[in-house]
Amino acid sequence: MATNGHLPESNVDVLIIGAGPAGLMAACWMAHCGVKTRIVDKRNAKIFCGQADGLQCRSLEIFDSLGFGDRAWKEANHMIEICMWNPGPDGLIRRSDRIPDTIVGLSRFQQIVIHQGRVERFFLDNIKKYSQDTIHVERGVLPESLEIDRSKVEDDSAYPVTVKLRYLTEEEATPEQQVTGSKVSDGIFRSNLVQEDDEDDLIQKSKARNGTGEIVHAKYVIGCDGARSWTRRALGFELQGEATDFIWGVLDIIPITDFPDIRMRCAIHSAEHGSLMVIPRENKLVRLYIQLKEVTPDASGRADRSKITPDVIFGAAQKILSPYKLDYEHCDWWTAYQIGQRVGSEFDANKRVFLAGDAVHTHSPKAGQGMNVSMQDTFNLGWKVALAAKGVAKRSILGTYQSERQRVAKDLIDFDHQFSRLFSGRPAKDVMDAEGVNMEEFKAAFLKGNMFSSGLSVNYGPNNLVVKAGGDDGSNSAEVRVSADAFAKSQALATGLPVGMRFNSFKVLSQADARPWHFQEKLKSDGRFRVVLFAGNILSTAQKQRVDKFCEALDAPANFLRAATPAGAPVDSVVEVLTIHSAKRTETELLRDFPEILHPFDQHDGWDYNKVFVDDVSYHEGFGDAYTNYGVDKERGCVVVVRPDHYVGWVGDTDDFDGVQKYFGGCLVLGQKAELPLR
Amino acid sequence: MATNGHLPESNVDVLIIGAGPAGLMAACWMAHCGVKTRIVDKRNAKIFCGQADGLQCRSLEIFDSLGFGDRAWKEANHMIEICMWNPGPDGLIRRSDRIPDTIVGLSRFQQIVIHQGRVERFFLDNIKKYSQDTIHVERGVLPESLEIDRSKVEDDSAYPVTVKLRYLTEEEATPEQQVTGSKVSDGIFRSNLVQEDDEDDLIQKSKARNGTGEIVHAKYVIGCDGARSWTRRALGFELQGEATDFIWGVLDIIPITDFPDIRMRCAIHSAEHGSLMVIPRENKLVRLYIQLKEVTPDASGRADRSKITPDVIFGAAQKILSPYKLDYEHCDWWTAYQIGQRVGSEFDANKRVFLAGDAVHTHSPKAGQGMNVSMQDTFNLGWKVALAAKGVAKRSILGTYQSERQRVAKDLIDFDHQFSRLFSGRPAKDVMDAEGVNMEEFKAAFLKGNMFSSGLSVNYGPNNLVVKAGGDDGSNSAEVRVSADAFAKSQALATGLPVGMRFNSFKVLSQADARPWHFQEKLKSDGRFRVVLFAGNILSTAQKQRVDKFCEALDAPANFLRAATPAGAPVDSVVEVLTIHSAKRTETELLRDFPEILHPFDQHDGWDYNKVFVDDVSYHEGFGDAYTNYGVDKERGCVVVVRPDHYVGWVGDTDDFDGVQKYFGGCLVLGQKAELPLR
Repeated sequence: MATNGHLPESNVDVLIIGAGPAGLMAACWMAHCGVKTRIVDKRNAKIFCGQADGLQCRSLEIFDSLGFGDRAWKEANHMIEICMWNPGPDGLIRRSDRIPDTIVGLSRFQQIVIHQGRVERFFLDNIKKYSQDTIHVERGVLPESLEIDRSKVEDDSAYPVTVKLRYLTEEEATPEQQVTGSKVSDGIFRSNLVQEDDEDDLIQKSKARNGTGEIVHAKYVIGCDGARSWTRRALGFELQGEATDFIWGVLDIIPITDFPDIRMRCAIHSAEHGSLMVIPRENKLVRLYIQLKEVTPDASGRADRSKITPDVIFGAAQKILSPYKLDYEHCDWWTAYQIGQRVGSEFDANKRVFLAGDAVHTHSPKAGQGMNVSMQDTFNLGWKVALAAKGVAKRSILGTYQSERQRVAKDLIDFDHQFSRLFSGRPAKDVMDAEGVNMEEFKAAFLKGNMFSSGLSVNYGPNNLVVKAGGDDGSNSAEVRVSADAFAKSQALATGLPVGMRFNSFKVLSQADARPWHFQEKLKSDGRFRVVLFAGNILSTAQKQRVDKFCEALDAPANFLRAATPAGAPVDSVVEVLTIHSAKRTETELLRDFPEILHPFDQHDGWDYNKVFVDDVSYHEGFGDAYTNYGVDKERGCVVVVRPDHYVGWVGDTDDFDGVQKYFGGCLVLGQKAELPLR
Repeated sequence: MATNGHLPESNVDVLIIGAGPAGLMAACWMAHCGVKTRIVDKRNAKIFCGQADGLQCRSLEIFDSLGFGDRAWKEANHMIEICMWNPGPDGLIRRSDRIPDTIVGLSRFQQIVIHQGRVERFFLDNIKKYSQDTIHVERGVLPESLEIDRSKVEDDSAYPVTVKLRYLTEEEATPEQQVTGSKVSDGIFRSNLVQEDDEDDLIQKSKARNGTGEIVHAKYVIGCDGARSWTRRALGFELQGEATDFIWGVLDIIPITDFPDIRMRCAIHSAEHGSLMVIPRENKLVRLYIQLKEVTPDASGRADRSKITPDVIFGAAQKILSPYKLDYEHCDWWTAYQIGQRVGSEFDANKRVFLAGDAVHTHSPKAGQGMNVSMQDTFNLGWKVALAAKGVAKRSILGTYQSERQRVAKDLIDFDHQFSRLFSGRPAKDVMDAEGVNMEEFKAAFLKGNMFSSGLSVNYGPNNLVVKAGGDDGSNSAEVRVSADAFAKSQALATGLPVGMRFNSFKVLSQADARPWHFQEKLKSDGRFRVVLFAGNILSTAQKQRVDKFCEALDAPANFLRAATPAGAPVDSVVEVLTIHSAKRTETELLRDFPEILHPFDQHDGWDYNKVFVDDVSYHEGFGDAYTNYGVDKERGCVVVVRPDHYVGWVGDTDDFDGVQKYFGGCLVLGQKAELPLR
């Protein structure tokens, strides 16, 4: 660490500001990819209580690829069914519908509910393990200034972003949680009902006590510092959108009630007293989201916080649930918020400073989206930054972050806007009641929301990393542009693997030992691209010849696989080739039937037995029928490129080696590598 | 701690000698049941390498009930298929058969292979968690003397066993591993090829340096100190049986080979060079069990250890595998052993000192049984000792340990004897070759062994805890004896739940939240007995009346459920009642349709939502069809008593409350409880 003037200075590849789920996901990528990284947070985050959230199917798939999906799955409460309750003709609530909480067949996981503090714990443990204990969250550290040297932003070796950090005392870094004087923990201090402006205060305090800090020069900065993002303000960016008049309260209690569906997820519309959502949680807790009809915003559009107490919220819940009785002895946490939707117009500055999570989109928490979409922002961004910082990928791929994630954020905001209106509205008394909300419309929105909230409907548009038709928005480089006709033809080779969507999972068997695997289990988040060779019927002579020809090209030193690999590193360091064939397992042999590049030899470890799979029946876990489910022809197969974040980047014919070569030519730095391999 | 003469003295409920898997399983029970326990081991066991072993389905079910099945399942290598290789007409080996490694449909788990050191780690973590860090393995501690005060053995409050312990130095507690001078870790020092007599040496050394120790008075002592058990010798008991002439070597290597099934479990008989078993392991390792035809025992029956080196073992493996090539760069560990089978005639002294694991049965390691049967010994014993020590159960149940486990040990020894002979024999050249082993006979033994080695064929005979016909061996108390006719009638009520066998698992849904559970997941190993009420069609008026009547009796203060519960403790502290009904989930409601004793009310937590299940279709995980699979009538249901170790203890009609009452009268202390409840 050099010193410049008073403050020490240092370089780092990536600086992450904010250690909530979005920041931790970014740090997790850096740990898995071996990128020199620091992550700072102004809070000494030991305060978490409340802040539960749903985890989408997609988030669980991501956790699993990082190595801790099982921990979340084991600890969480599994929500299976949603019950809808509406007023009957007598005005009393009754159950009108039951629907599965997760659409059947979408994913190998279903939506679950878990405390955010546990999710952060899983991340911290995982980051510690994969970074070999080199990446720690530095708490009580607040950024004071940020500058980008615009003359250097396109220089791969430069550290063009300079951030001044200030160290807080333990006391300064501890938020005053009990703003309401209640004995129960509350989240009001984090709620959008409070205008927080403590950064300036904290910096003034630090200056007053001659507090100190440091200067960090970073290649890349990722701001994950929440709805009132300091990073966003430092860049001069703003969120667009506005608040509504709807005020909701949140209670985490162990309920004592005769309401029969208290362990189901419930959407309850009362006739006159507002709406309530029941989210059953772990450890006997239930979260209630409760509409506060009696609290309304003032002329400035802000609600009077002093009117919101646990008693007010609980009283509202009792009225909505009537004639069922509701009581509790234990309340774990409570908060309140005002519904509103806002999205950022800029997600990055010069592809050097990025914003993610609540820093670029805010909305109501009820849809259980917040933590998921935020983590998925940095799951999209992290590997791109990591590969660019390491010189493995071209910097141009960083432009895809905004184009891919801004659209997801806008879709989320639109959905939340519609859903909040329908959920906060009074149910229609009959078909003539035009002001009331039609319960059929609400159910339809709920079902649509269910697809949306799985996280699996995301479909990225065409760009350098997603080769499909369209994409004349400038983010698409010439090398990989395809015509609509050509694209339709190639997509038809794998109808179950739409380009731009995440690689779906079916069970296949390992050729070498017959063990069944969900194919997604083989797509670990380690920063590697993957070429999935659907080798088809490898026992047919004609098909074997096609596969041999493809493999010969794969193996050629000038082509992408070896050209992307740093000197001396294993051939699967940057791009891994995985094979799924469709011949009978017991008639096929790994060493005899498959070219060596599909199971590379190592002098110390022998052949690699973990890269060739077969679409065949298992003894104990049924038949994945992968070729049928992926929509791939069992004779001819095809080739699919999978991005490090599991999105399908390219689909083509086994004869079309040039197409794969072009794909990687468009996004990777080929040849001239001196860096260490990944991991 | 009082001092008596020179040495400090103290009392403990349970003293466990030996911290291998059997000892740790015993300690694990004590941790889960809250029993004051110490566990000592003479070794500073940091040396483990090698010592891999297969885990049976049953062991995984047990691990899951303790809370760490998922860790083993995730880390282990899963063996899916067994390939048999025999000489063809040309004398060269070729694959003759493929069979699944675990019989399909037996269990929700399949046999896996994992390093013993990892299994011990899972135990240590679990013991730490459940004992709230009060039970630690005390290493470098050697027992010096053991005395039983026979006048006090039937006194429930006495500590009749006195053990003098001696503390070793770090150096004394570290075995000399490299007895052969090889650079690779070996296990020869633990092998039966070495006559270990170091206890006496160590005690002499300790005395010579004025080493110190202590005196422990224990209610119960469990000796899990291996094949040369100090505890067994202190009791004057012996193992019966003898060694064979078969000598086998073991190598853990990363093989470099063109043998096509190197990642399968293989049983290979060569024409002339002996036999070999391939056990693929985690981390690219493969374990080879290799018959050493060129090493034979001398006149005394013992093999010359100096002739056994890694090169000799590897050379034998190469010959057997020929014409396939075998090489390696990395060898992790190696050892050798002489096949023999021995079993103890006494498993306990005065139901106060017990022997378990290798201390009462030894055999060859190839069948992958050793660790499993040893752990299952103490899984059988631990809860009995815990409940007796706490005064919850009658001391008479301790007699069932020997009657139940000695038979399992004898079956194992018999199987191992037959299997070793068939596996170590030369394959028959043709039907006239009477001296050779018939390969069909070998395959038949292998298949039988596969059932045996799942651990699921165990069927305990009648006694206090297993109410079935027979059992005139004196272990069966009068209260619970049944006639063959009466037993046949009651067993017919649940044909899929044979009394004496472990409670099989099928999926059911939680009534309150529709979540699917494998029913075994609800049988946690926490020391509680369970009454499983198959409530049948609860929506039928007649059936509802029968259930109501049963529940009324359950709830009566004089009857077993409340009489077994300590004053002030929750009603499910000693016996938990779980319900599975067969009506439609969506037509049934927990609070409306089921008596409160089936979902007890708590003032702080409300009703218990985790005790009533339904045999219905799930959204995401299919239909368990539990009533059909358990062989229970969907209208009338039945009642099943499950022991704390998941074995079925009693089956009867819902009208037969007296039968359940008698069962618990036979094994539990009813009334007059002042102890703290089990968790």
